[in-house]
Amino acid sequence: MITDHRASVREFVERPGFQQAIIAVIMLNAVTLGLETSQSMVAGIGGLLHVIDRTVVVIFVAELALRLYGYGWRFFRDPWNLFDFAIVGIALLPVTGEFAVLRALRILRALRLISVVPSMRRVVGGLLAAMPGMASIAALLSLILYVAAVIGTKLFWQIAPEHFGTLARTLFTLFQTMTGEGWPDVARAVMAEAPLAWIFFVVYILVSSFMVLNLFIAVVVSAMEGQVMAETRAEEAAHAAEEQVANRQILAEVQALRAELADLKARV
Amino acid sequence: MITDHRASVREFVERPGFQQAIIAVIMLNAVTLGLETSQSMVAGIGGLLHVIDRTVVVIFVAELALRLYGYGWRFFRDPWNLFDFAIVGIALLPVTGEFAVLRALRILRALRLISVVPSMRRVVGGLLAAMPGMASIAALLSLILYVAAVIGTKLFWQIAPEHFGTLARTLFTLFQTMTGEGWPDVARAVMAEAPLAWIFFVVYILVSSFMVLNLFIAVVVSAMEGQVMAETRAEEAAHAAEEQVANRQILAEVQALRAELADLKARV
Amino acid sequence: MITDHRASVREFVERPGFQQAIIAVIMLNAVTLGLETSQSMVAGIGGLLHVIDRTVVVIFVAELALRLYGYGWRFFRDPWNLFDFAIVGIALLPVTGEFAVLRALRILRALRLISVVPSMRRVVGGLLAAMPGMASIAALLSLILYVAAVIGTKLFWQIAPEHFGTLARTLFTLFQTMTGEGWPDVARAVMAEAPLAWIFFVVYILVSSFMVLNLFIAVVVSAMEGQVMAETRAEEAAHAAEEQVANRQILAEVQALRAELADLKARV
Amino acid sequence: MITDHRASVREFVERPGFQQAIIAVIMLNAVTLGLETSQSMVAGIGGLLHVIDRTVVVIFVAELALRLYGYGWRFFRDPWNLFDFAIVGIALLPVTGEFAVLRALRILRALRLISVVPSMRRVVGGLLAAMPGMASIAALLSLILYVAAVIGTKLFWQIAPEHFGTLARTLFTLFQTMTGEGWPDVARAVMAEAPLAWIFFVVYILVSSFMVLNLFIAVVVSAMEGQVMAETRAEEAAHAAEEQVANRQILAEVQALRAELADLKARV
Repeated sequence: MITDHRASVREFVERPGFQQAIIAVIMLNAVTLGLETSQSMVAGIGGLLHVIDRTVVVIFVAELALRLYGYGWRFFRDPWNLFDFAIVGIALLPVTGEFAVLRALRILRALRLISVVPSMRRVVGGLLAAMPGMASIAALLSLILYVAAVIGTKLFWQIAPEHFGTLARTLFTLFQTMTGEGWPDVARAVMAEAPLAWIFFVVYILVSSFMVLNLFIAVVVSAMEGQVMAETRAEEAAHAAEEQVANRQILAEVQALRAELADLKARV
Repeated sequence: MITDHRASVREFVERPGFQQAIIAVIMLNAVTLGLETSQSMVAGIGGLLHVIDRTVVVIFVAELALRLYGYGWRFFRDPWNLFDFAIVGIALLPVTGEFAVLRALRILRALRLISVVPSMRRVVGGLLAAMPGMASIAALLSLILYVAAVIGTKLFWQIAPEHFGTLARTLFTLFQTMTGEGWPDVARAVMAEAPLAWIFFVVYILVSSFMVLNLFIAVVVSAMEGQVMAETRAEEAAHAAEEQVANRQILAEVQALRAELADLKARV
Repeated sequence: MITDHRASVREFVERPGFQQAIIAVIMLNAVTLGLETSQSMVAGIGGLLHVIDRTVVVIFVAELALRLYGYGWRFFRDPWNLFDFAIVGIALLPVTGEFAVLRALRILRALRLISVVPSMRRVVGGLLAAMPGMASIAALLSLILYVAAVIGTKLFWQIAPEHFGTLARTLFTLFQTMTGEGWPDVARAVMAEAPLAWIFFVVYILVSSFMVLNLFIAVVVSAMEGQVMAETRAEEAAHAAEEQVANRQILAEVQALRAELADLKARV
Repeated sequence: MITDHRASVREFVERPGFQQAIIAVIMLNAVTLGLETSQSMVAGIGGLLHVIDRTVVVIFVAELALRLYGYGWRFFRDPWNLFDFAIVGIALLPVTGEFAVLRALRILRALRLISVVPSMRRVVGGLLAAMPGMASIAALLSLILYVAAVIGTKLFWQIAPEHFGTLARTLFTLFQTMTGEGWPDVARAVMAEAPLAWIFFVVYILVSSFMVLNLFIAVVVSAMEGQVMAETRAEEAAHAAEEQVANRQILAEVQALRAELADLKARV
């Protein structure tokens, strides 16, 4: 009986209508949370926005409960369900005191669109598939960032304390340099006292750009591999299969011929 | 009779000479509109520039009328014709009061070069063909921009109202950050009061760069697919076809042989 | 007799030793012209640098004269020779008064390294080969730059005359924006008076980035086409040729078989 | 006997346990060197950090000595061993007076992770493999940078001495321009006095971007060549081999048939 209930719950939550209703709720919530950023909106219709927000949370919790009941433990096997679970969970945490920042993170619920809309799910799936190929280069890049940060802090902490005063500050400065933003100002400030500091900046920029380039290439190659070459190979495999059929046909024909010849020979 | 008229009008507007005359008119208009940006030119030959501008509009309207007459309703099936229609339409709108900005948009007529010159038409056609492949990632990027903007406004609107004061302002700041321009100044201003704000900036930059990279890859893959691989596959398909012909020839030969052998067997 | 002379001159200028001597002279000149940028060097050994510079010009002229004599009119058929000719020609122009800037361009002689060193010649040849594929997109990008400049000047010349005052100034501002540099400062200055100006900037940045991206892709595709795919296709063509040989062999064998069978039939 | 000793030493240093211990030591040292950048840490546990640092150096020297003993001269044939040797060598140099900067370079020991962890070794190996393909374009880019620096210094040293005062300063300014950072400020400063200076900046930016793009393409093409196409070709080669087997089989069958027919003919 329970299994029947569960099956009918599953059938209900997988209906297109149900999915579309959830998408509508997510988008409504995204809009109300956007409106909440405006002071005049909060002063005017803040009560309404709050009611909608609470209602949406109730709907999300009810939806998750239905799916949990419907799928049982299997629910936790799909990583997208864990994603939904975590995002809805944030909404239920207390939002006072130190956790006030969580109020701002409520908008992360809008990311549930990704798990609900199949085409977005595919795109994100594709992006995540490129991750493993990037892992080694990302590790190398982190190592280089750390090494450069220790050197930079050691060398320049007295010259430019606002950029190189602590390891954390240097890491931020080097991340900024990696995005190619505002580094000449930093470099000139340091070079005013340590003229050879250009070596540090030029080497770091060349090495980190080369790493970022390779990170980038890893993604391009993985995308090429996945999309372009797959088609080419599929076509080629199809040609090869056709070819094989043709060859087998010829072979069978020739072998039949030989059998008949043997037969003829026996008669002669 | 009307059909004859129409056919001869079509034949007229498709003549290379007519097309070249239109190209010349477009370029002349582009130059006069450029000259109009100079105060001294307007003071000197403003009257002449105005006369040319009016004449060009008359020519464009006449050309469109001819093509409309020549092609009838079919005219509206070609999206490039709609493009021409819209651009010429702007020229006929009133340009006073609130619509004064439309005076500046008259130069959009120069874009008619794209619809008239076939090689440019092909390039733009190729660019538009890459669009559908970008749609899902662009939607995802917009979602992330919106989510980050709501979080940023909620967290920093009091700390840095000039960058995060309203949702619109934050969207502009985050677009600016995405182009990698001037973000460290913004980040340092915020971090002076909220030291952990670097998490927001670093996560946003990494995620949005990764998205832009993938948008970019979608275009590269689509171009590769379209240009490079198409040739490779065409060549391969040619080889496969040749191969098939050869195999059929062998098969036919072997089958003929078998028929003769059967014939021989019958005789023996 | 003259032909013999010419042939021996050609043989002389094509000797590796001669080429290496010219390379050495080019590099020496590059160094002396670099030293000339230092005031203290000019004060100390300015006379020597001047003597070397004059001597190098004499050597270049003599070398060109030899090659002109050796190859006759054919000399002008190789574009690299025209390049050498133009660069040496600059050295012979008067360098006083308005042409003083040409003194600075003498260092362009160092670019003769490209025409003399074969590996550099190949690289530049490869780069130039990618140009035609870029022409249409570059033209489109120029058109868009021009249209945006006219619109920008018309709309903002009063608000921000230092960036949008004249068409030339706006073109520079938009080129700067295209390189992604310092545009938020410009945009914020304009938006202070015209709040909707963000539309202009965002549309321009999106369109021009997309164009630059496609320019870039045109180069990548051309490089791929030239290098990677060429090898793959060559290999495939080799496989196809092998295959064809095998098929012909089988066909010949089968046909021979048929001939023998016909012979047998005739005997029976 | 010695050979036996050496073999057992080799066996010892190649044990996974030994390698993991070395990785742990490297990471411990990376952390302590990071902690040394903090003034409060040095004040608190500076003595401990120093002891760990000295101990780590002793361990590294001992490890190198073991490997040197184990492999003899062969040790120097692996470039990674030379890398380890150089990095440990830095640790043994005096760190007083002019060499104080070497104290900061001690963190380079953390890069030993690359030589010890096989996956990182492979990544760096792959990066280095792309280098030769970049050499010609990098040389060309350096040549262009030098030529532009000489021209820039000659033309602008009086106008903007802080950016173009000496050849070295101009090289730094042009490197900065190549990274697309802060060039409009430099350009506007120069253009205030030399209005045509925009030609220099625009030409330099276009040429250097095109070069950097091609440097980049060289790396992409090499990666494609290495990873994507290799698989495609391997698959194709496999198809071709299969095909060849099939063709040989058919040929053998047909030849056998012919032999039997000859036999039959002989009997008739």
